Amino acid sequence: MIINVDGQLHTSDTAKISVLDRGFLFGDSIYEVTDAQDSHPLFIEEHLDRLWQSAKKIDMILPYTREFIKDQLGKTLERLNVKRAYIRIIVTRGVGDISLSPQSSNTFSFVIITKELQANPSWWYDKGVEVIIAKTKRTAKDSIDPSIKSGNYLNNVMAHNEAVKQGVFDAIMLNHEGQITEGTTSNIWMVKNDHFITPPIKDGILEGITRKMLLKLLSQKKLKYSESTISESDILTADEVFLTSSTRRILPVVKINNTLIGAAVPGPKTRQLIELYEDFLKSRD
Amino acid sequence: MIINVDGQLHTSDTAKISVLDRGFLFGDSIYEVTDAQDSHPLFIEEHLDRLWQSAKKIDMILPYTREFIKDQLGKTLERLNVKRAYIRIIVTRGVGDISLSPQSSNTFSFVIITKELQANPSWWYDKGVEVIIAKTKRTAKDSIDPSIKSGNYLNNVMAHNEAVKQGVFDAIMLNHEGQITEGTTSNIWMVKNDHFITPPIKDGILEGITRKMLLKLLSQKKLKYSESTISESDILTADEVFLTSSTRRILPVVKINNTLIGAAVPGPKTRQLIELYEDFLKSRD
Repeated sequence: MIINVDGQLHTSDTAKISVLDRGFLFGDSIYEVTDAQDSHPLFIEEHLDRLWQSAKKIDMILPYTREFIKDQLGKTLERLNVKRAYIRIIVTRGVGDISLSPQSSNTFSFVIITKELQANPSWWYDKGVEVIIAKTKRTAKDSIDPSIKSGNYLNNVMAHNEAVKQGVFDAIMLNHEGQITEGTTSNIWMVKNDHFITPPIKDGILEGITRKMLLKLLSQKKLKYSESTISESDILTADEVFLTSSTRRILPVVKINNTLIGAAVPGPKTRQLIELYEDFLKSRD
Repeated sequence: MIINVDGQLHTSDTAKISVLDRGFLFGDSIYEVTDAQDSHPLFIEEHLDRLWQSAKKIDMILPYTREFIKDQLGKTLERLNVKRAYIRIIVTRGVGDISLSPQSSNTFSFVIITKELQANPSWWYDKGVEVIIAKTKRTAKDSIDPSIKSGNYLNNVMAHNEAVKQGVFDAIMLNHEGQITEGTTSNIWMVKNDHFITPPIKDGILEGITRKMLLKLLSQKKLKYSESTISESDILTADEVFLTSSTRRILPVVKINNTLIGAAVPGPKTRQLIELYEDFLKSRD
């Protein structure tokens, strides 16, 4: 593991931050996660776009240029020197008086965590995973907007904890209107009558980069898709369900709340999309 | 400032925590704030009760005894050696794999921040303060329960930021039902027809220690009070309004959203309660 803290490279033992940092005190931070193949971070421009959007939504005016962040990331990956790397970029509102007011700090901190990333277990894709619908509801847009990728993740931690306690892979979360939103660290999709359907941003979700790329790809390939509200009964009666995220790509879901989805194996449309997305990623190399 | 990190005393320059700590990555931490007079922390038993309650609510099984935390606090205050001290006790779910799962870590971290605390500005109590009702809504109980004092404070940071931008002291927050809940770091009360009224826990608030002590005191003194839901129009037409917190005690509010409250000066019932509470605190010495 190689960690860049404010421009200095560290191993995990020495990578530290002040306990007075607002990221530690309040979760007053934003972040992005992606992976890199041979030191090429996947969709880095899109991730930086979203980092700047998260900043704007919490009134954080970033003092860095995109080039600076990319240079620091490059320097960190060079030292790590692995085939496939996990990347987490974190920016916090720095150290100030211990006060909620963002104006109490005029500094910033950035942290780039990189580590070797193993291939995901093949059974995830061969057999599919099991999830539950969490009792913990996704935070409402007018409380902590899920479209902000922030250091406030206790909501997701608690939902994921429900899944762990039930011995399943992850949890999907409902909003307060009872609509399906997303996984705890992924977007969700279903296939019904050969249509690919994923919840719209307005239902209170993070605009995933993989989600965005898949919508583009589905449009290019002239496959049927829509961004539409999904209810609990919709998803339980879907033909196929899958999760998407930067590091997991497209992950089939075969069981939700003990209900088998479709034929309880990764379905043909999911497999088709996995192949199309692999080709799409290769074509960008 | 003297800061205890896992048993080691530091100044602010060297008090650091791993960037892999779940408190930094996810806000997966709980905390308490109080003050100490001559190294006697105010209501420390009640604060530790609440710390353990917060832990329980996020499925965190604390590895410390109360005596251990009190010993560490005592050691820290002894080194600080001031007349009046600010105290912040933080416990996190430690360092593990970068995964939402609480089970991915089997360590804990604790941090005790202490610093000299000046007397609050006398104008706060003489003139009262101005607040707004924030557009940012308090997180719902089934998302991130406000009764958990956790490191997820972006919701409150954003509400407080609205107040700062409007040049007022603080913001009070509504729940999604439009009911008044609390200030961003305080409980709220109103006086109407000589009744003291504060929202019930079920409306989605933190059970403040000062709030708890005042309810006890009001009962002892046979003053009229209730824990009842407060609407926006209720509070704007109240005779008197005040905020309560451990470090601010009882703070009169004289203007909300540009509406003057009562005679726009700290009212007689608020002043009466301030005096009774001062006597109550002295009687405990």
